[in-house]
Amino acid sequence: MYITQRPTIEKLERKLNQPVKCLDHGYIIPRDYMGSDQSIANAARISYQNGTRKLSDDANLIRYLVEHKHTSPLEQCEIQFEMKLPIFVARQLVRHRTAALNEMSARYSILEKEFYIPKAEDCAPQSKLNKQGRDGKLPEKSRKIVLNRLTEHSLESYQLYEYLLGEDAEGNQNDGIGLARELSRMTLPLNFYTKWVWKIDLHNLLHFLKLRMDSHAQYEIRVYADAIFEIIQDWVPLTIRAWENAVLRSASFTGEELEILQEGISKKADFWRPIIQKKHPSWSDRKIQEFLRKLGA
Amino acid sequence: MYITQRPTIEKLERKLNQPVKCLDHGYIIPRDYMGSDQSIANAARISYQNGTRKLSDDANLIRYLVEHKHTSPLEQCEIQFEMKLPIFVARQLVRHRTAALNEMSARYSILEKEFYIPKAEDCAPQSKLNKQGRDGKLPEKSRKIVLNRLTEHSLESYQLYEYLLGEDAEGNQNDGIGLARELSRMTLPLNFYTKWVWKIDLHNLLHFLKLRMDSHAQYEIRVYADAIFEIIQDWVPLTIRAWENAVLRSASFTGEELEILQEGISKKADFWRPIIQKKHPSWSDRKIQEFLRKLGA
Amino acid sequence: MYITQRPTIEKLERKLNQPVKCLDHGYIIPRDYMGSDQSIANAARISYQNGTRKLSDDANLIRYLVEHKHTSPLEQCEIQFEMKLPIFVARQLVRHRTAALNEMSARYSILEKEFYIPKAEDCAPQSKLNKQGRDGKLPEKSRKIVLNRLTEHSLESYQLYEYLLGEDAEGNQNDGIGLARELSRMTLPLNFYTKWVWKIDLHNLLHFLKLRMDSHAQYEIRVYADAIFEIIQDWVPLTIRAWENAVLRSASFTGEELEILQEGISKKADFWRPIIQKKHPSWSDRKIQEFLRKLGA
Amino acid sequence: MYITQRPTIEKLERKLNQPVKCLDHGYIIPRDYMGSDQSIANAARISYQNGTRKLSDDANLIRYLVEHKHTSPLEQCEIQFEMKLPIFVARQLVRHRTAALNEMSARYSILEKEFYIPKAEDCAPQSKLNKQGRDGKLPEKSRKIVLNRLTEHSLESYQLYEYLLGEDAEGNQNDGIGLARELSRMTLPLNFYTKWVWKIDLHNLLHFLKLRMDSHAQYEIRVYADAIFEIIQDWVPLTIRAWENAVLRSASFTGEELEILQEGISKKADFWRPIIQKKHPSWSDRKIQEFLRKLGA
Repeated sequence: MYITQRPTIEKLERKLNQPVKCLDHGYIIPRDYMGSDQSIANAARISYQNGTRKLSDDANLIRYLVEHKHTSPLEQCEIQFEMKLPIFVARQLVRHRTAALNEMSARYSILEKEFYIPKAEDCAPQSKLNKQGRDGKLPEKSRKIVLNRLTEHSLESYQLYEYLLGEDAEGNQNDGIGLARELSRMTLPLNFYTKWVWKIDLHNLLHFLKLRMDSHAQYEIRVYADAIFEIIQDWVPLTIRAWENAVLRSASFTGEELEILQEGISKKADFWRPIIQKKHPSWSDRKIQEFLRKLGA
Repeated sequence: MYITQRPTIEKLERKLNQPVKCLDHGYIIPRDYMGSDQSIANAARISYQNGTRKLSDDANLIRYLVEHKHTSPLEQCEIQFEMKLPIFVARQLVRHRTAALNEMSARYSILEKEFYIPKAEDCAPQSKLNKQGRDGKLPEKSRKIVLNRLTEHSLESYQLYEYLLGEDAEGNQNDGIGLARELSRMTLPLNFYTKWVWKIDLHNLLHFLKLRMDSHAQYEIRVYADAIFEIIQDWVPLTIRAWENAVLRSASFTGEELEILQEGISKKADFWRPIIQKKHPSWSDRKIQEFLRKLGA
Repeated sequence: MYITQRPTIEKLERKLNQPVKCLDHGYIIPRDYMGSDQSIANAARISYQNGTRKLSDDANLIRYLVEHKHTSPLEQCEIQFEMKLPIFVARQLVRHRTAALNEMSARYSILEKEFYIPKAEDCAPQSKLNKQGRDGKLPEKSRKIVLNRLTEHSLESYQLYEYLLGEDAEGNQNDGIGLARELSRMTLPLNFYTKWVWKIDLHNLLHFLKLRMDSHAQYEIRVYADAIFEIIQDWVPLTIRAWENAVLRSASFTGEELEILQEGISKKADFWRPIIQKKHPSWSDRKIQEFLRKLGA
Repeated sequence: MYITQRPTIEKLERKLNQPVKCLDHGYIIPRDYMGSDQSIANAARISYQNGTRKLSDDANLIRYLVEHKHTSPLEQCEIQFEMKLPIFVARQLVRHRTAALNEMSARYSILEKEFYIPKAEDCAPQSKLNKQGRDGKLPEKSRKIVLNRLTEHSLESYQLYEYLLGEDAEGNQNDGIGLARELSRMTLPLNFYTKWVWKIDLHNLLHFLKLRMDSHAQYEIRVYADAIFEIIQDWVPLTIRAWENAVLRSASFTGEELEILQEGISKKADFWRPIIQKKHPSWSDRKIQEFLRKLGA
C-alpha cells in the first residue's frame, strides 16, 4: 500500500491484482491504471475553458462528450491487464493495434500444459445465417466426441512438444530431441494458452468492447470483453453509463433507413414532445431538438 | 505518363496534379494514390475467402463492409495531397494523427506574404447556441472594419517579419536585423498560409471527413474537407456511395432515444414491411430484419 | 492524498502538481503517471519467463532492454503533463503523434494576453552552418530593437483580438465588433501561449527527448524537453540511466564510418581487452564481445 | 496495363504480381505501391523549400535524410504485399502495428492443408548463448525423427480439423461432426499457413527489416524479411543504398563504449583526415567533422 496524490478509485483498487477467471484456465488481472472520470472531465475543461460554464457537473460533461463523440479526453485514461488466454483469442486481440503488449515468448520459454476445451454446451455447429459464427446445438453424442478428441489431440500435441524440446516447462530433461524452442512450439495447436500484459487507453478500450462484446464476436473473446467491462464499471462509472446509452445500446440508421423511418411515422414535433417529456422530464430543449432532428422532424 | 500494372482510376488520374482552389490563396492538389474500390473488395475477399460467395459483386461487398463497420480493407488505400492552408486550419488538420505529413519549415525557409482574409459574408458573430461556432450576420459596417483591420494587421506583421529577418522570401537583403528565421516567424499571425504534403489511408480519411464536413466544423476547414470529398468521389465511387448512406447521412439513436422511438411508433414488422418493399424492392430479408431489429420490432 | 496498491514513486509524487517554469510565461506540471522501473522489468519478465533467470536484477534487466532496443516494455508506462507553451512550440510538439492531447480551443474560449518574448541573449542571427538554427550574437542595439518590436507587435495584435471579439478574456464587453472567436483568433501571432494536457508513454517520450534535447532542436522546445527530462529522472531512474548511456550519449557510426574506424585502429581484441577491463571490471565476456564485434575485431 | 501519371518504377512493375517463394509453401507477392525515391526527395523539399539549394540532387538529399534520421518523408511511400506464411511467423509480423492488414479468417473459411516443415538442416538445437535462438546441429537421426513427427502430427491435426468441421476446404461434406469453423480451427498447430494482405509505409517497413533481417530474428521470419528487402531494392534504390550504410551496416556505440574507443585510439583529427580522404575523396568538410565529433576528436 502506498500513498499517492494521483486520482485514485477506491472500488477499482479493491479489484487490483485479483484474477477474474475466464474460460477454463484463463484469467484477467487488472494490474495498474491511470485517470478517472474526473480526469476526463478535467481534460475536456482544458479544451473548453470558460466556454463550458454550463456543463460544470462531471456527469453531464462526460455524457455530452460521449454522446457527441468528443472522445479525445478518454485517451487520457489508461488501464493495464495481465491476461492468460488461448492463442486463437490472442490472435484476435492483437489486432487492436493501439494497445501496448508484452507477450511471453515461446522462443525464450516453454509454454505450459494448458489448453482450452470448451464446455459441452458451447460446442455448436456452424451457423447457417451468420457466416462467421456458430448457432444451434450439436447432438449430445457429437459433443462428447468433440471434447474427447480435442483433449486427446491437445495432450498428444503437448507430448510431442516436450519430446522435441527434450525438456519440460520446469526445465527437467527427458529422452527427447533437444530441438530449439522456437521450432518445437510449432506443434502446439491454437487452443493452447499464452500470457501477456496488455495496456490500452480508455477510448480505444471502449472501441474494443463495442466490437468484442457484440453478439457477432466469437464467444471466447466475448468472455474476456465481458470480464473487462465488469472491471471498468468500478473505474469510470460515469463514462461507462454514458457509453452504454450512447454507444452500446445505440442503433445507427443509414440514410436509407432514416427515410423509411420518417415516412412510416409522424414527423411532427407535437407528437413526440409529450412522449419525451413523460419519459425524460429533465431533457433540455436542445436535447429534444437533437432527437427530433434525427427523425427529420 | 507511365505504364503500370497497378489499379488505376482514369477519372482520378485526370485530377492528379490539378490544384483545386480553397479559400483565397489556398489549394489542394492530389499528387498520388494507391488502391481502388476493387482493391478494397479484394482485401475483404482475402478475409472471407470461400465464405463470401454471395457477395461476389464489388458494390454489394463494399456496401456490406461499410454498413457493418468492417473498415480494415479501406486502410489498404492511400491518397496523397499537397496543400496550402492557413496555419489555424493546419492546426486542426494535424490533430488527425494517422496522416503522414511534411510541412514546410519556417526554421529553414521564409514564409511567403500570403494570408487568409475571409469574404465579407463569412465574417459572422459568435453563435449564441453553438459555443464553438459563428452564426448570424454582422452589420455591413462591422464587416468592412474587420476586413480592413485584418488586412492591415497581416501586412504589418509581414513587414515586421521581413525586417527582423533582414531579407525577403526571395533572399534579397534589406536593412533589417538578421534575426534567425525560427525566431522571426513568431511575428506571423495564425491566418498566414503554410504548405505541406499530407498522406492518409481511406479509412482514416473518411473519419476525418465525417468530422470536418460536419456543420459544427469551422467553415474554413470544411472548405478543404469538401474539396477532398469532391476529389475522392472519382477515386472510389462505390465506397463513397456506401459511406454516404451508412455514415454521412446516417443518424445514431442513443439507447434512451431508441426507447422513445419504439414507444412512439408501431413496432410491428407488418407495418414496416410494405413501406420498405415499396421503397427498396431489392432489399434482402436479412437487410429488412436488420432494420426491424434496430426498431425493436 | 489517497491510498493505492499501484506502483508509486515517492520522489515523483513530490513533484506532482508542482509547476516547473519554462520560458517567460510557460510551465509544465506533471499531473499523473502510471508504472515504474519495476513495471518495466515485470513486463519484460512476462516475455522472457524462465528464460531470464540471469537478469533477475531490475537494473541489469532494464539496461539490457534499453541497450538492445527491446523497448516495448517501456510502453507500459505513461505520464501526463499539463503545459502552457507558445503556439510555435506547440506546433512542433504536436508532430509527436503517439501523444494524447487536449488543447484549449480558441473556438470556445478567449486566449489570454500572454506571449513569449525571448531573453535578449537568445535573440541570435540565422546560423551560417546550420540551415535551421541560430548562431552567434546580434549587436546589443539590434537585440533591443527585436525585443521592443516583438513586444509592441504582440500587444497590438492582442488589442485587435479583443476589439474584434468585442469582449476580453474575462468576458467583459467592450466597444468592439463581436466577431466569432474562431475568426478573431486569426490575428494572434505564433508567440502567444496556448495550454494543453499531453500524455505519452515512456518509450515514445524518450524518442521525443532524443530529438528535442538535441542541440539542433530549437532552443524554445529544448527548454520544455529539458524540464521533462529533469522530472522523469525521479520517476524511472534506472531506465533513464540506461537510456543516457545507450541512447543520449551514444553515437552511431555508418557502415562507411565503421570501415574507416577499423582501418585506423587496431582491431585486435588483445589491444582492447585491458582497456575495457580497467574501465569496466564488471563487464561480462558477452558484453566485451559485443563491443569488439562493433569494432570488427 | 494502365496509363498513369503517378511516380512509376519500371523495375518494380516487373515484379508486381509475381510470387516470390518463401519456405516450403509460403510466398510473398508485391501487389501495389505508392511513391518512389523522387517522392521522398520532393516531400523533403516541401519542408526545406529554399533552404535546400545545395542538396538539389535526389541521391544526396536522401542520403542526408536517412543519415540524420529525418524519416518522415519515407512515410509518404507505401507498399502492399500478399503473403502466405506460417501462423507462428504471422504472430511475429502482426506485432508491427503500423501495418494495415487483412487476414483470411478461419471463422469464415476453412484453412487449407498446408503446413510448414523445416528443411533437415534447419532443425537445430536450442542455442546455449542466445536464449531465444537455435544454434549448432542435431544428429542426422534426430533430424529425421523431427521431420517425421512434425509431418505426422500436422496431418493428424488436419484430419481432426476436417472431421470436426464435417467438410473439407472445397466444401465437400464428410462423416464428421459439423462443429463451427471458429471452434474446429483450434486443432491446428502453429505451423499451418495463413494468408493476408499487408500494407506498410517505407519508414516502418525499414524499421521492420532492421529488426527482422537481424541474425537474432527467427530464421523463418528472416526468409520473409530478406524477400521483401530483395523486392524493394528495385523500388527505392537510392533510399535502400543510404539505409544500408546508415542503418543496416551501422553500429551504435554506447556512451561507455565511446569513452573506451576514445581512450584506445588517437583522437587527433590529423590522424584520421588522410585515411578518410583516401577512402572517400568526395566527403565534404562537414561530413568529416561529423565523423570526428563522434570520435570525440
